[in-house]
Amino acid sequence: MLVSEIGEFGLIRLLTREFGIDYPPSPSVRARPGLLVDLGDDALVSLEPGGGLIWTTDTLVAGVHFLPERCSWSDVGWKALAVNVSDVAAMGGTPHLALVTLCLPADFRVEDALELYRGLHEAAGCFETVLGGGDIVRGPVFVITVALSGRAALSAAGEARVMTRSAARPGDAVAVTGSLGDSAGGLQLLLDGARGEGDGKAKKLLGAYHRPRPRVALAGEAVRAGVRCAIDISDGLVQDLGHIATASRVAIRVELNRVPISKELHALFPGRAAGMALRGGEDYELALIAPPAVLEGLITGADTPVTLIGEVLAAEEPRVVVVDESGREVPLTSGGWDHFAKP
Amino acid sequence: MLVSEIGEFGLIRLLTREFGIDYPPSPSVRARPGLLVDLGDDALVSLEPGGGLIWTTDTLVAGVHFLPERCSWSDVGWKALAVNVSDVAAMGGTPHLALVTLCLPADFRVEDALELYRGLHEAAGCFETVLGGGDIVRGPVFVITVALSGRAALSAAGEARVMTRSAARPGDAVAVTGSLGDSAGGLQLLLDGARGEGDGKAKKLLGAYHRPRPRVALAGEAVRAGVRCAIDISDGLVQDLGHIATASRVAIRVELNRVPISKELHALFPGRAAGMALRGGEDYELALIAPPAVLEGLITGADTPVTLIGEVLAAEEPRVVVVDESGREVPLTSGGWDHFAKP
Repeated sequence: MLVSEIGEFGLIRLLTREFGIDYPPSPSVRARPGLLVDLGDDALVSLEPGGGLIWTTDTLVAGVHFLPERCSWSDVGWKALAVNVSDVAAMGGTPHLALVTLCLPADFRVEDALELYRGLHEAAGCFETVLGGGDIVRGPVFVITVALSGRAALSAAGEARVMTRSAARPGDAVAVTGSLGDSAGGLQLLLDGARGEGDGKAKKLLGAYHRPRPRVALAGEAVRAGVRCAIDISDGLVQDLGHIATASRVAIRVELNRVPISKELHALFPGRAAGMALRGGEDYELALIAPPAVLEGLITGADTPVTLIGEVLAAEEPRVVVVDESGREVPLTSGGWDHFAKP
Repeated sequence: MLVSEIGEFGLIRLLTREFGIDYPPSPSVRARPGLLVDLGDDALVSLEPGGGLIWTTDTLVAGVHFLPERCSWSDVGWKALAVNVSDVAAMGGTPHLALVTLCLPADFRVEDALELYRGLHEAAGCFETVLGGGDIVRGPVFVITVALSGRAALSAAGEARVMTRSAARPGDAVAVTGSLGDSAGGLQLLLDGARGEGDGKAKKLLGAYHRPRPRVALAGEAVRAGVRCAIDISDGLVQDLGHIATASRVAIRVELNRVPISKELHALFPGRAAGMALRGGEDYELALIAPPAVLEGLITGADTPVTLIGEVLAAEEPRVVVVDESGREVPLTSGGWDHFAKP
């Protein structure tokens, strides 16, 4: 059997089952000894003398995750770190130290490597992360892997406090930060031939695609406000809320007309903006799930835009439902991103 | 300019200089704030509330670091973790938590992925390491990246104690663990067509190549005994001692007839064994540098074979000299392993 036949998530399920690790996470699953959060969340959390450490890694492959001829290398460097920072933020933590592995073809240009590192250092400065070296190897294709550790938020008693995928409860409200779909719009502009020289609207969408800014500060505020359930929106809102629904054994109902969509996305992609917001992916915004009063308190106090978009319902089967203004269910054609799925 | 023109180490020097980080390390270079050991050692060490954390990452690319048709996937999995454990051992620490990133072609077999993870889990069990998940992506070639964190040894006062490349001093002795060159011999057997079905001698060399066993326990004993300078022998003894010489600003004199070489390597590669021991690489043994009395104490108390092979000398220019029984310098034709060097 080939990995393309069972898909990325099928392979992960098989590998975890084979080696006796419960996956995907659920309210009834215990983490292995020494861990506060085990496999299957945005990141792993280990228990340490000083609290909790958060662990995540993400990879970008040229031609798979980005198109080298349409991106600057500094943007690739920025994004390689930022996508990991987003996972740490989803746990409510702050980034700490990153290891960078480059696989470079022998004919890769030194100038491009410098440009790549310029973007990495810009992101490291922005997100207060130590670039801790790594490994450089030769290979047939450009691959960048960043492994990032972060520090978990601490309670007043010095205990690690995190947000997980399995903590949603019926009656909770669902909110998201920022606006959704801009990154998908930016990618579409690139595929259509734009190179960033467009007007302000195009610039905004391209910026969302090239230079995502994970919500680290807001994540910290959320943990302090009492939010215990979150995910970063990287695979698309519907698919990512699906991960919450599965891990928490609940249903989630999203009201489409409340999903925040920028005026730039509406203007450049009339008719397609909602689809991009629901399924586009690579937003690197946060979905936050908590009792309504907790989220309302957060919204009142935060500088970052946070928008209520739905609610958590009890359910036999985990699912995500999107409804329109009249309460009718919106059909969802595609789940989101799977590395090995057939188109 | 292409990366193949300046080589792996040239690229690292350029990237660190460009971004204001001192490299390679030397006795006069300070680590960045929050770090006990900065870039350029076997691993980075950060200062944490509970002591020190050790950080390293290493990658294996199919066709570059191993030949898929000559290795079992479980051996690839073992080695991917073990080469990182070796870097943690070189700092005197113990492995803690690993993140694994796989880049898989779409036609990679699920059975091979399971086999790979079998080897990873065996190594994780052997080296008491938590496998903390990671990332699986699609790409044109198989790549496995392991990022490993470890815990630094602690002094009685609870402070991190590590071994670095820059702590060699004139008058110190040089020792190595185990025997050298077996892995290079094993690789040569594979290139010559062996498949592990050979006699006991071949099995030993192939085992050294496929399933290296980094010296974690001995590394801990060395730190406790007062050893403060070490490196793991991954690029070849001469090149790795060259890293010590450069970082410590000293010369190192090795007596060839004291370098431990197994009887199996001598038997299978008469005439070539010494060259394999000096330059072969992938031994994943440790070179330990300390005052003679410290090393002699370690040798007396340790179960692991540790052999004195040379001494550290004051020098204007860092260098490694290998001498034969009559004290004559042995010519060294090749430095060791550089990912982008031309053959």
